[in-house]
Amino acid sequence: MDDTLIATASAAAAPPFERWLALHGERAERALERVLPAASTHPSALHEAMRYAVLGGGKRVRPMLVYAAGEAGGAQAGALDCAACAVELVHAYSLVHDDLPCMDDDVLRRGRPTVHVRYGEALAMLVGDALQALAFEALAGAAVQGAGSGATALMVAELARAAGSVGMAGGQAIDLASVGLALEREALEDMHRRKTGALLRASVRLGGLCAGMAGDAGAARLHALDRYAEAVGLAFQVVDDILDVEGDAATLGKTAGKDAERNKPTYVSALGLHAARRLAGRLREQAHEAIVPLGEAGRRLGELADLIVRRKS
Amino acid sequence: MDDTLIATASAAAAPPFERWLALHGERAERALERVLPAASTHPSALHEAMRYAVLGGGKRVRPMLVYAAGEAGGAQAGALDCAACAVELVHAYSLVHDDLPCMDDDVLRRGRPTVHVRYGEALAMLVGDALQALAFEALAGAAVQGAGSGATALMVAELARAAGSVGMAGGQAIDLASVGLALEREALEDMHRRKTGALLRASVRLGGLCAGMAGDAGAARLHALDRYAEAVGLAFQVVDDILDVEGDAATLGKTAGKDAERNKPTYVSALGLHAARRLAGRLREQAHEAIVPLGEAGRRLGELADLIVRRKS
Repeated sequence: MDDTLIATASAAAAPPFERWLALHGERAERALERVLPAASTHPSALHEAMRYAVLGGGKRVRPMLVYAAGEAGGAQAGALDCAACAVELVHAYSLVHDDLPCMDDDVLRRGRPTVHVRYGEALAMLVGDALQALAFEALAGAAVQGAGSGATALMVAELARAAGSVGMAGGQAIDLASVGLALEREALEDMHRRKTGALLRASVRLGGLCAGMAGDAGAARLHALDRYAEAVGLAFQVVDDILDVEGDAATLGKTAGKDAERNKPTYVSALGLHAARRLAGRLREQAHEAIVPLGEAGRRLGELADLIVRRKS
Repeated sequence: MDDTLIATASAAAAPPFERWLALHGERAERALERVLPAASTHPSALHEAMRYAVLGGGKRVRPMLVYAAGEAGGAQAGALDCAACAVELVHAYSLVHDDLPCMDDDVLRRGRPTVHVRYGEALAMLVGDALQALAFEALAGAAVQGAGSGATALMVAELARAAGSVGMAGGQAIDLASVGLALEREALEDMHRRKTGALLRASVRLGGLCAGMAGDAGAARLHALDRYAEAVGLAFQVVDDILDVEGDAATLGKTAGKDAERNKPTYVSALGLHAARRLAGRLREQAHEAIVPLGEAGRRLGELADLIVRRKS
């Protein structure tokens, strides 16, 4: 979803999904605003930098997945806000750390200087560390916002696992070790399943858990969400790789072609551009098939899958 | 508690507190062993480095505070193991990140090369990130280990706050900004209350929460624990500053005199060595006074306060 879409969607005549996106985008933004300490709170340099890292940019894909999955199961709005903040804060922290000189050494993110360029390396590291902690603080709030304590404890375990050494951080470690290697398709998928897929999947599952799908009665729907999340997670990465080749810095808000330049293995380098595009299309279909059991309640999830595959940035 | 103490305490004739220390030290070690993925688990470089960062060293002060506070309230052993792991993993992650070149640039920790020296900067950053996530995964386990889901959600919020921007990470940010400044005693205390005090306090409180002190019936005891933790947290830092001046690298397992060399404000630089020693003594007394309401159940907490003030490393 790009800014033009959101702006158009604010008009009353906007079609339902664009309106839904605009409303939930604003909701995620307000929830993040609330959960982040004010820039004036001591220590203010850290809090200012945390807000810079999180607010005023970002496609908020993960919060949208939380909302769409949660609403498909009838979850309470307050609990979904907590989970939406949590996944976005984990995502934001990972970007700040990825951009550091010892990692990708990026100077531009969302069209602005990266956190370490603006605030220095040491503070950028602390920004990431503090945002991860804040993610769990936000998530813990779901216990008193309608998700219940039992589901909240499960969600904390789920998010921690997705962010940790067998999930996102593990994917980064594999990525580090893969520069200059020609990964087989299977190894590439394993890396991305961890690096980006795990948090996207957790976003969908957290929505389901907020809606009480942890028990036996919800098991079939949680399984449907899982299959959906698996397909969408991979599709997201395939499209990222395509955009890295096709996009330009102005649209992406970051330097294009960097993966290729760094000799990082991508779906495009592994499959070629044409086959990568076909794969993205097939994964979109798989996402739609997965949510058939949810019926009309899964509509937003289907629309989000379309958006993720068709996005231009 | 140093290694000699633990070794002596393993003998049957050891006095009760040393025996308690040895038993709980082993218990914390076993629990950390279990919660850390095996070094053979993919991605193995990351898991090997995480185990290197956590196992085989460290005084385990924070787990001991969890156990002592929890046992004072009759908490379940399994829940305390979860909380003990969680606070130690947060502590371990903070050391890995603090040692990085962009922070303190330390090459020696617990008498061994620091994680970034051994495994490289990028992996060291991921080790810290993954250990923080693992801390919350471990803590979430308390829900099914006798602490209950309600207390677990509270513990997650408590640990996240202690680790985050108004706690430990915030203290680090203040520390960064304070190099070369002569901080007033009040500003110095504020920094340390966040940087080391917040996690020590959370350790004590998590023990209490495992023992069901969240409700009205436990409020007075939780308040006693709080006052104890406040005194012990500051005492810990005052003694650290004294040891930085008096100690040598062989005993400390890290480079002595580094704070003074870096022109960092310390209790010794603010008060002088003699007054800093007297302050540590007074804080020890305050810790003992705070736990009077706990009676005999608070005995281990009192003994830990003595140990923290009298330690040589």
